[in-house]
Amino acid sequence: MARPTPLSGFPEWLPAGRVVEQHVLDTLRRTFELHGFAGIETRAVEPLDQLLRKGETSKEVYVLRRLQEEADSSEGAAGDRGGKGDKQLGLHFDLTVPFARYVLENAGHLAFPFKRHQIQKVWRGERPQDGRFREFVQADIDVVGAGELPYHFEVELPLVMAEALGELRSIGVPEVRILVNNRKVAEGFYRGLGLDDVEGVLRSIDKLDKIGPDKVGALLVAETGATPEQAAACLALAAISGSDASVAERVRALAAEHGVTSELLEEGLRELSALIDAAAVRAPGVVVADLKIARGLDYYTGSVYETVLVGHEQLGSICSGGRYDTLASDGANTYPGVGLSIGVSRLVSRLLSAGLVRSTRSVPSAVVVAVTSEETRPASDAVAVALRSRGIPVEVAPSAAKFGKQIKFADRRGIPFVWFPAGIGADGEVVAHQVKDIRSGEQVAADPATWAPSAEDLWPRVVPAGE
Amino acid sequence: MARPTPLSGFPEWLPAGRVVEQHVLDTLRRTFELHGFAGIETRAVEPLDQLLRKGETSKEVYVLRRLQEEADSSEGAAGDRGGKGDKQLGLHFDLTVPFARYVLENAGHLAFPFKRHQIQKVWRGERPQDGRFREFVQADIDVVGAGELPYHFEVELPLVMAEALGELRSIGVPEVRILVNNRKVAEGFYRGLGLDDVEGVLRSIDKLDKIGPDKVGALLVAETGATPEQAAACLALAAISGSDASVAERVRALAAEHGVTSELLEEGLRELSALIDAAAVRAPGVVVADLKIARGLDYYTGSVYETVLVGHEQLGSICSGGRYDTLASDGANTYPGVGLSIGVSRLVSRLLSAGLVRSTRSVPSAVVVAVTSEETRPASDAVAVALRSRGIPVEVAPSAAKFGKQIKFADRRGIPFVWFPAGIGADGEVVAHQVKDIRSGEQVAADPATWAPSAEDLWPRVVPAGE
Repeated sequence: MARPTPLSGFPEWLPAGRVVEQHVLDTLRRTFELHGFAGIETRAVEPLDQLLRKGETSKEVYVLRRLQEEADSSEGAAGDRGGKGDKQLGLHFDLTVPFARYVLENAGHLAFPFKRHQIQKVWRGERPQDGRFREFVQADIDVVGAGELPYHFEVELPLVMAEALGELRSIGVPEVRILVNNRKVAEGFYRGLGLDDVEGVLRSIDKLDKIGPDKVGALLVAETGATPEQAAACLALAAISGSDASVAERVRALAAEHGVTSELLEEGLRELSALIDAAAVRAPGVVVADLKIARGLDYYTGSVYETVLVGHEQLGSICSGGRYDTLASDGANTYPGVGLSIGVSRLVSRLLSAGLVRSTRSVPSAVVVAVTSEETRPASDAVAVALRSRGIPVEVAPSAAKFGKQIKFADRRGIPFVWFPAGIGADGEVVAHQVKDIRSGEQVAADPATWAPSAEDLWPRVVPAGE
Repeated sequence: MARPTPLSGFPEWLPAGRVVEQHVLDTLRRTFELHGFAGIETRAVEPLDQLLRKGETSKEVYVLRRLQEEADSSEGAAGDRGGKGDKQLGLHFDLTVPFARYVLENAGHLAFPFKRHQIQKVWRGERPQDGRFREFVQADIDVVGAGELPYHFEVELPLVMAEALGELRSIGVPEVRILVNNRKVAEGFYRGLGLDDVEGVLRSIDKLDKIGPDKVGALLVAETGATPEQAAACLALAAISGSDASVAERVRALAAEHGVTSELLEEGLRELSALIDAAAVRAPGVVVADLKIARGLDYYTGSVYETVLVGHEQLGSICSGGRYDTLASDGANTYPGVGLSIGVSRLVSRLLSAGLVRSTRSVPSAVVVAVTSEETRPASDAVAVALRSRGIPVEVAPSAAKFGKQIKFADRRGIPFVWFPAGIGADGEVVAHQVKDIRSGEQVAADPATWAPSAEDLWPRVVPAGE
């Protein structure tokens, strides 16, 4: 077998990189669970027809086929439903579609409002580029209600994400800005202006970052039938941002200027203001109202969120989501929801490629127990057992090489301590247990029943690259 | 959308079941890391030609196709290598093939011997049945050397698995037996008998549990050219099992009886004895030599392992593996390895379906903070923030319903405590913070800055179903 090369779009990390990713995942999970979100996983596949209901993503779906499918024609009866068409499966491209299906499938066994987190890989057959992968990890939180879902969850969820991402600041993750908007504000304003093609206006506004206000203004006139004055008003709305009560005042002033009165606009402003006010208390400086955020507004119905890493805005949003009045519906019941999704692979790949963070070592072990000779390996094993019983990660040297070589074994892996077991020395004298900190060279007598490394050295830690 | 039904072979757990699975995964990871195994993940896909090198599994592979592959003809140049044939990708069916590829791809960045654990989903398009899924989680540990790998790792690895599975005894996982054999014993014995079709003999012996010794004896005569005496000798070898030094003695006596002398047999017996002796000290009663274990002996070259849950032997092996002299090879270097793989989904599905274990609750929250009115929700949020800052998982009630309803909200989820925030009572009097244990009904004054639940109530725990 020739030496294989990586597959573009399918990132993998070396062990030290995986320590970073695992730390990020563990931190997110812990924060989500401190807020009461229950963890679930869904299968990687969904029926193709369900995946294709979200039109825009359909071309990204990976379809599955059993290599020997045709050879096994009796299979349909075994466990799959219906005819050949029903059997087509694809890999999920997000965690929202599977979650909606899970909610419908298990509604009778879930307690609503149901708060769940879900951390899994997803697949999209897109052209790979920086921060855009074909296989990547998402970490989602959603709250879903049965029939109704109070607005305060739209305040709570971005604050949970702010806290989760804030917990990562200590390892060197840059500050984040969560940019929020509310569809009711946009829709109320546009309709109040006399523009009824709300989707069309939002599609144009969504291009602001790419093509700038002049071209967006022209688009609005050309494609949504807006007058130059209406287009200018839409652009003025999109230019409003801030993190205090003045945002709503500026929107109201703009509306008054254009003779817009709209109950929907007022409702949206009240909601947006409540979010900004709560965020100012619980996550000062993190949440910013930004009225140009138009994200996925074809199915979002209230708050929408995007998140940028400060200093890495070009990477795009690393955490997005919003409120949808119909996450799922089975005819009898409708399940509204609100959720956000962190692009973990996008975040971690930037942390690693930009050299922002590092792991203090690439292996779990804090200690290598040296082996004096293969005959006395059991004595070395016994030391390892004693240390592990007290929660210290330990490995035993792979061979009874010269001690210098065993120290080098530890050094290459970043393992801070080498333990020399008690035994009979070269001159026949009894030698006591000793442990060496190979960074300082200090070597001291130690007892396997009581010695422990410092809390800092116990497990690999993820730290800012400069530390 | 009609209510969806499960896909056969693609298991999913309700939140309480996921608590069990997550506990199993966390316990395995912790044990692996205490022994110095570094965690890695590999992508879910491998080039199809690599997946098909293990002939027997080829019919189980799921092949991927981008739905719009044909529509995007320029893609080959973007990131994929070579022509159309090279682009075929399939989902991995185990974690060994991807690990071998990862080792070759990253050999220059890894320190050998390299100990890794890997916990991921794998996919096999087999017919689903009890304990056999199309998507399932495996938890693997392997040690791989560059050029050489000392025997003692063949002793260490099953002991790590014994410890990992032993850590699960406290939640109600049944006792396990790790059954071990050594290919050198079987091959040395058969060749010493004059049987050179070692693979053929092993294939027949592998059927012992299914068809019994009489039919296996007939198979040996019919398919490997054995005489009835040779067949009887093979069956006599396969009948030997035990967990002490007598195993090797019985094999030696059988060999002498049939005039078998073999250096390979002796080497195998020394290895097997070393494993049994070490296991008797470090995992008494868990490891049993069983000379009929013939698992995957087409590529294993030394120790082989299978593991049964005592009382659930019909489930099949839940943890298998062995030693292979060539995990991977790139021409210049050969990488021998030894590893075992736990079938986590098989284990967890049995734990749940047989009602062996349960989770103390289905959500992380230990506390629900009640909400007196929507106007005072920020006061309830503040209590939650204070508790969470000390590591207590908390959620705030979804609505300012009557307190009875809010208590019921907690009760339905198994959340043990409801917190009533300080405020102004119905009669205008000042009310202090109170917390109620809804199991006992006891309600006491409490301070958000200092109160904590017992360690037992802090997080959901997984316990034997009877507790």
